[in-house]
Amino acid sequence: MKIDIVGKGNVGIHLYKAFHGKADVQSVDSRSLKNLRHDSDLYIICVSDTAIREVASKLCSLINRNSVIAHTSGTTPLSVFEGLDVNAGVFYPLQTFSKSRELDYTEIPVFIEAGNQTAVKTLTDAALVMGCKVKHIDSEQRKHLHIGSILACNFVNHLWTLSDNYLKAHNLDFESLLPLIKETYSKISEINPSDAQTGPAVRNDEKTLRSHLDMLKEDGNLSEIYRILSDSIKNTHNIGKP
Amino acid sequence: MKIDIVGKGNVGIHLYKAFHGKADVQSVDSRSLKNLRHDSDLYIICVSDTAIREVASKLCSLINRNSVIAHTSGTTPLSVFEGLDVNAGVFYPLQTFSKSRELDYTEIPVFIEAGNQTAVKTLTDAALVMGCKVKHIDSEQRKHLHIGSILACNFVNHLWTLSDNYLKAHNLDFESLLPLIKETYSKISEINPSDAQTGPAVRNDEKTLRSHLDMLKEDGNLSEIYRILSDSIKNTHNIGKP
Repeated sequence: MKIDIVGKGNVGIHLYKAFHGKADVQSVDSRSLKNLRHDSDLYIICVSDTAIREVASKLCSLINRNSVIAHTSGTTPLSVFEGLDVNAGVFYPLQTFSKSRELDYTEIPVFIEAGNQTAVKTLTDAALVMGCKVKHIDSEQRKHLHIGSILACNFVNHLWTLSDNYLKAHNLDFESLLPLIKETYSKISEINPSDAQTGPAVRNDEKTLRSHLDMLKEDGNLSEIYRILSDSIKNTHNIGKP
Repeated sequence: MKIDIVGKGNVGIHLYKAFHGKADVQSVDSRSLKNLRHDSDLYIICVSDTAIREVASKLCSLINRNSVIAHTSGTTPLSVFEGLDVNAGVFYPLQTFSKSRELDYTEIPVFIEAGNQTAVKTLTDAALVMGCKVKHIDSEQRKHLHIGSILACNFVNHLWTLSDNYLKAHNLDFESLLPLIKETYSKISEINPSDAQTGPAVRNDEKTLRSHLDMLKEDGNLSEIYRILSDSIKNTHNIGKP
């Protein structure tokens, strides 16, 4: 399989590594398109959401008619390719990519959407070559999935940042929490996160909640987050309702 | 070492298991105090915060003067034992305990506070017998640590619950996110969570943020959480400021 990865950001670099040794893959600069091959089976566009359309348009005039073009964005619909005469699709690997870390690709699900059967087949083959699990969803569901991942990962990482900053400000170290965080994560790979909920809010421990809000009152942002998430825990678990 | 664990809730059961085979440990019902030994080295009170004082008072009249009494609460200060003629302390293992899961105790830090040297020594010995790391903090710091752990674990688990519920409502499964969540966790054991932040807020991707808020507008709770945490990410990372 012949694949050109267009774009050399985090996602582009990781996808290049993921295909390296498993397919005839090369990495292409998304602005110059220098070295772009005209006869690859698949062009994976790894650029910012706003640049996808422009890069796709350029590619169309340079490549074979039976090639497939795909973007990797969680937010951008398949319709970004509308009006372009091309086999188009979305190749969305649900993983967070940072340059310094190696990943186990066999665990990563790739969510595929395609405009025609040629694109379905090529994108499925590519995901399998990469060693990933293949899932099929449409643009609307992919948006929902993206929101779900922001809640479960981006916001989670931010809470860890807030915790880190709060502990540092009180001469405590966040590293002490790592075993607890690890166990919190391990639990939800076995049981439903709802069933794993612990803490003062789900215990309806008003005394502790009030005492913590009092300790946080100097920090408007942190006390608002503490209050809203505690209220949300109570609502979700029907705590404190008559 | 002779230890009575007073209270048979999650924490009590886990501590009993943790000491089993390493110390002469027994589990005692916190109401009846049936089987309580009068000559143990240490009594660890594992009851709700509001019941600690009462159980401690009862114990005082039943045990040897050189024994040590400790509670395991993150929120309750050492002063809960004030006025009782006893070697008192706090034995706070920073871990989440659920009945069904086994734990690796060598990773768990135990935070100790003590009213006198006898209590310091006995509690330190107990933590070491259990195989844990020993840390010393006072009641004020323990409260901060507790708040840090609520942010990093209780609230994080709740975001996973919200994500699970949201995905289920859109016929998607939360299990697809587990590799992404695992990687999100793995990153912060290597780099600072602040440096690991990804997502639309830290990219200042207003278009995606607005589109997501629009998709969430039917759900008042979720859209408020989305907005507040996105704003907090921007504030923390100085995004979008002139």
